Amino acid sequence: MTRFGFEIAARDGAARCGRLSTAHGPVLTPAFMPVGTQATVKAMTPDAVRETGTDIILGNTYHLMQRPGAERIARLGGLRRFMRWPGPILTDSGGYQAMSLSELRTLDETGITFRSHLDGSRQHLTPERAIEVQHLLDSTITMVLDECTPFPATEEQAARSMRLSLAWAKRSRDAFRPRDGYGLFGIVQGGVYPDLRAESAAGLKALDFDGYAVGGLAVGEGQAAMFEVLDVTVPHLPAEKPRYLMGVGKPSDLVGAVQRGIDMFDCVLPTRSGRTGQAFTRRGAVNIRNARHADDPRALDSDCRCMTCGGFSRAYLHHLVKAKEILGAILLTTHNLHYYQDLMAALREAIGAGRLAAFAAEFAAREAGGDIAALAGAAAADAAPHPADGG
Amino acid sequence: MTRFGFEIAARDGAARCGRLSTAHGPVLTPAFMPVGTQATVKAMTPDAVRETGTDIILGNTYHLMQRPGAERIARLGGLRRFMRWPGPILTDSGGYQAMSLSELRTLDETGITFRSHLDGSRQHLTPERAIEVQHLLDSTITMVLDECTPFPATEEQAARSMRLSLAWAKRSRDAFRPRDGYGLFGIVQGGVYPDLRAESAAGLKALDFDGYAVGGLAVGEGQAAMFEVLDVTVPHLPAEKPRYLMGVGKPSDLVGAVQRGIDMFDCVLPTRSGRTGQAFTRRGAVNIRNARHADDPRALDSDCRCMTCGGFSRAYLHHLVKAKEILGAILLTTHNLHYYQDLMAALREAIGAGRLAAFAAEFAAREAGGDIAALAGAAAADAAPHPADGG
Repeated sequence: MTRFGFEIAARDGAARCGRLSTAHGPVLTPAFMPVGTQATVKAMTPDAVRETGTDIILGNTYHLMQRPGAERIARLGGLRRFMRWPGPILTDSGGYQAMSLSELRTLDETGITFRSHLDGSRQHLTPERAIEVQHLLDSTITMVLDECTPFPATEEQAARSMRLSLAWAKRSRDAFRPRDGYGLFGIVQGGVYPDLRAESAAGLKALDFDGYAVGGLAVGEGQAAMFEVLDVTVPHLPAEKPRYLMGVGKPSDLVGAVQRGIDMFDCVLPTRSGRTGQAFTRRGAVNIRNARHADDPRALDSDCRCMTCGGFSRAYLHHLVKAKEILGAILLTTHNLHYYQDLMAALREAIGAGRLAAFAAEFAAREAGGDIAALAGAAAADAAPHPADGG
Repeated sequence: MTRFGFEIAARDGAARCGRLSTAHGPVLTPAFMPVGTQATVKAMTPDAVRETGTDIILGNTYHLMQRPGAERIARLGGLRRFMRWPGPILTDSGGYQAMSLSELRTLDETGITFRSHLDGSRQHLTPERAIEVQHLLDSTITMVLDECTPFPATEEQAARSMRLSLAWAKRSRDAFRPRDGYGLFGIVQGGVYPDLRAESAAGLKALDFDGYAVGGLAVGEGQAAMFEVLDVTVPHLPAEKPRYLMGVGKPSDLVGAVQRGIDMFDCVLPTRSGRTGQAFTRRGAVNIRNARHADDPRALDSDCRCMTCGGFSRAYLHHLVKAKEILGAILLTTHNLHYYQDLMAALREAIGAGRLAAFAAEFAAREAGGDIAALAGAAAADAAPHPADGG
């Protein structure tokens, strides 16, 4: 069996590129994980997701618990087999959505009590149950249960929340059943407070996880504050373990976070944008609903090699989106995921060549060319998980 | 350039199998044309449609006139290029939807006056404009403007309607610009009245079309009455020209109509059903929303070689449809179109082997095994074009 492991191939400043080894195949890092909320990356077949250059996807434990149910997925051979995804899957703990999507939720030391947003049933999510559910899903990478500290929070609130998450991390660690090629990640909390982030990182490091996530960001604090938190957090994480920035982000977030030493990302932005007519291109973001595309025979992004850009005009994409056709969502999601994965590949290449700073400068200059001047702000807001519809 | 032509390779009773030659590629007959209402076969990429075994698709002139507009499609290189469909396209005249989807429509000898269901604009569709629009779309096969005689209709109403359609057929013929490899089809009307059907067929035959459609069926008259109309109509059509039964139908309709000498079909049933959880299988129709599929690890149809049946369980499809995931529509539409095209291939093979009667008997016995006992009736009702959403 493959051991779960992480090899760093090259470093460039704080950034690194490498390779995660798992029971279900390798992951080149820095890596972007498309979100497959309800056992599907929306509007994409698994083969189409693979063709974008995706090594690993993310599944949402809360949604899968509600429907079709973790025990059912276990009977059907686990999440990978159920949805026919050939590579590794990382699942979140379910805690974030239990707090954000369900009703009447309360949080105490034992865990989170909530009513299902689907059937109204009363449920209790403990650290032990969050791990058990992820075992039932046969997740390649399991996340500990934590509380995503709300923003804004006072230092006292953030401290209390972080220490609860640390206690839950210990209980999650104890409940996790190690298997060759499977991993368990801890999650650093602490809000925008450097001392709390350091305390959280030290506490988790003592528990010896297979990887370390940075949580509680992309919740409205803005890119500058997010980068500041990374600057004071990443140095406290073990250098030889993978680092995962949860729920981030727009393309410039990824570039900046990679420069600060992050190895893994997930975000609904490329998939959700694909269903609302927003496209990412090498010349900035494009709103394909804009009337100026109605007669444009050109590809979305002339430098992109995806199926969408290889065959279909902006005029056609404009028509599909205006006519609310499913094919519009298919083609834009395909392109957006290609764009994200091409960006990750370019970042890996730049790190390998020791030219990440130059790449980041070129990227910033190119991105300014899009037709959505305000997208930076809009996308940051959009990057926060959205009620119910997910991925 | 390829000449538009039809070669009959084999006959079996009234049925025949053959090959239509067009400027945009061949069509093996009997042929099923998936419906691409708004310049897309819903939930399918053009490559995926091709992979089902589809030679030719249908486009809806009325919808395309409203959005994105026929002149715009012409500027962008025609409908085939606009939607990247590599094969031939047949377009209807727009008359049926102008009468059924728009408001305040009136019909007189000059044509149909109506308000667009999209923008409320007042429009006039004459035989000449219907042909001009199809020229702008660069349709491989153009249909004359006709009135789809309502059902039920008295003999007098049906006669008046049929004679108006015949006059429009002559005007359509005069407006059509012949080009190598392109064809123009007339449409037989006459309701359920044999003498009127014969008069319509004779009148159209005198105008010498490239093919002959049977219109005004699948409008609520039921399968038995439809077959009776075919029995009294098809003998009046030129034996050497292709025959197209418009808007039909469910699988048993296709089998029975092929036995009566029909060569071409179109229907929204496989695509629309794919978006509502109905699947066609070699053991009858299946409602995948039914709870009994929730834990079923088997394929939809174990004898099907499509992507859906090759990889995904009924349990997964059930989950996707219940969760309203786009991938559910993609996978079920893919399967349903495969099923339809496999059925057409089997019909062609049976005709070639002179065993169509035996095939039809086996088909009827197999089809009785599905879990939708009432589908025969439901599908017949559903086969009638549905307001606004199309294909």
